[in-house]
Amino acid sequence: MNVRLPTIEQIRDAAARIAPYANVTPVLRHPALDAMIGAQLHFKCENLQRGGAFKFRGACNAVWSLSDEEAAHGVVTHSSGNHGNALAMAAATRGIPAHVVVPEGAVRAKLEAIEQAGAILHRCAPTTAAREAKAAEVQQATGATLVHPYANTQVMAGQGTVVLELLQQSQGLDAIITPIGGGGLSSGCSIAAHGIDGAIAMYGAEPAGADDAAQSLARGARIDAFVPNTVCDGLRTLIGEPNLTALREHRVEIITVTDEEAIAAMKLLWQSLKLVVEVSSATVLAAVLKQRQRFAGRRVGLVLTGGNVDIDALPW
Amino acid sequence: MNVRLPTIEQIRDAAARIAPYANVTPVLRHPALDAMIGAQLHFKCENLQRGGAFKFRGACNAVWSLSDEEAAHGVVTHSSGNHGNALAMAAATRGIPAHVVVPEGAVRAKLEAIEQAGAILHRCAPTTAAREAKAAEVQQATGATLVHPYANTQVMAGQGTVVLELLQQSQGLDAIITPIGGGGLSSGCSIAAHGIDGAIAMYGAEPAGADDAAQSLARGARIDAFVPNTVCDGLRTLIGEPNLTALREHRVEIITVTDEEAIAAMKLLWQSLKLVVEVSSATVLAAVLKQRQRFAGRRVGLVLTGGNVDIDALPW
Repeated sequence: MNVRLPTIEQIRDAAARIAPYANVTPVLRHPALDAMIGAQLHFKCENLQRGGAFKFRGACNAVWSLSDEEAAHGVVTHSSGNHGNALAMAAATRGIPAHVVVPEGAVRAKLEAIEQAGAILHRCAPTTAAREAKAAEVQQATGATLVHPYANTQVMAGQGTVVLELLQQSQGLDAIITPIGGGGLSSGCSIAAHGIDGAIAMYGAEPAGADDAAQSLARGARIDAFVPNTVCDGLRTLIGEPNLTALREHRVEIITVTDEEAIAAMKLLWQSLKLVVEVSSATVLAAVLKQRQRFAGRRVGLVLTGGNVDIDALPW
Repeated sequence: MNVRLPTIEQIRDAAARIAPYANVTPVLRHPALDAMIGAQLHFKCENLQRGGAFKFRGACNAVWSLSDEEAAHGVVTHSSGNHGNALAMAAATRGIPAHVVVPEGAVRAKLEAIEQAGAILHRCAPTTAAREAKAAEVQQATGATLVHPYANTQVMAGQGTVVLELLQQSQGLDAIITPIGGGGLSSGCSIAAHGIDGAIAMYGAEPAGADDAAQSLARGARIDAFVPNTVCDGLRTLIGEPNLTALREHRVEIITVTDEEAIAAMKLLWQSLKLVVEVSSATVLAAVLKQRQRFAGRRVGLVLTGGNVDIDALPW
């Protein structure tokens, strides 16, 4: 599978394509946090995006990039998390079928949300092979288009619109940091940032227990035998091949944080910004806190990716 | 004490006065919540205001309404809650002293926040008489101006700017609902709303255990022998005299909700809007949920007043 990286033009097209459906999310500032950290922080609140996560942008762009003929057959993906839900919601905006392959044992609440958004669930064994086989089977039976969660040009382009918007809302940023899971967000955002201003330094925050992107960059090749172990459930995905290429081309520096650091930053975000954010999102603030000197005096954009939290089971 | 109600012009002046210091808070929409409730809900997010509550608007307007001569002597209030903190922050924007009278036994975390904001604390016994005596003593010793939390013209005017802003962001609202404690917010917002459009229906949400405004309106006179008992800590204040007058003049209808209803609505707000809001704020959604038929098909503004929550002690 040879997936092209999107261009800045494709990201601009994506922004126009998703505008009728996606929220323009606010950027929040917090003078007391700035003073505490010694940098100017601009929080891009994708937890306030439709569906509670940035994922809707990529899914929506993929759905609306299809021809009418393709669209009529629907879309399919394998994801029991935010992407599955986002694709279901995006398909609903176009009135086309969404098929979501989910592993046995996935969290019931998440599956219910995906079904409520109108998707058809297809269950399979909880292995990568079973997942891909089931998705291929659905594709063959229905003619649906596969929309991969991150190794997909239109998905990356849609997710890059986060930074297009951020740079309109907060001018003159020196640096931008996003969490890194599969790398769809980070690659789209890096291409968008450097399409506008080549001097913006790009960073990625990764949990120490899922630091495959850091390891892959250090080794010069993607590692794929790796079992992530972190409380950051949104970041347990291995970096995709095209995504890793984008990270390398755009000199994205990875900062790894421990689960404890991510949880402490999550709590700080809830208390100071008054936002419900996922622990995966909090890695970006944890990274800035950890490497305060590196960010001292700079204008930093932090992408808060989502807010889909089980509020009955908080990690503190 | 004969406190005048502010005019719409005074509210417009307040908006200009506080603009350099206060946040323009976002209005959030949530299509799924709208569908569930059968109304169009516009959430005005004052939990994202400086200091995490709408209180900053009133305090800031009061501080910047003083002459230089008055300002030099500072300001004083008695409040261990959001208003004390807001006044401390507002005084800091003008570089003048803030004195806050706090009862023995007030929550340590709140007092620390007020001190951190730069205020001078004055302790007294936890009675209304002791509080007022101590505030008078500070006034005499320092020449500071008393800024009452709600029975104060400039405070009401500042708090009314919430609705000026809301009606710019969401045009054509049919109804607006705010929580009711002392009534500063409700009176300021009613005057602002009807200064713009006399047809907007105004509502107040009150916890059943602190329904003194509802009782006072029913009886035609302010009740003052009443001990509030509710989990909504921001609403344990009795309605002020000028505030009650404003509620009557503007035909504000009160909807009372139980603590359980407020807590359920708080949880729903956290889960759907991804916002940290206080249980006091959630009374507005609880009221709309409770009287769904009354709001059916209408465009409703809901003021989410604050997000200062002890996230280690959530009420569910």
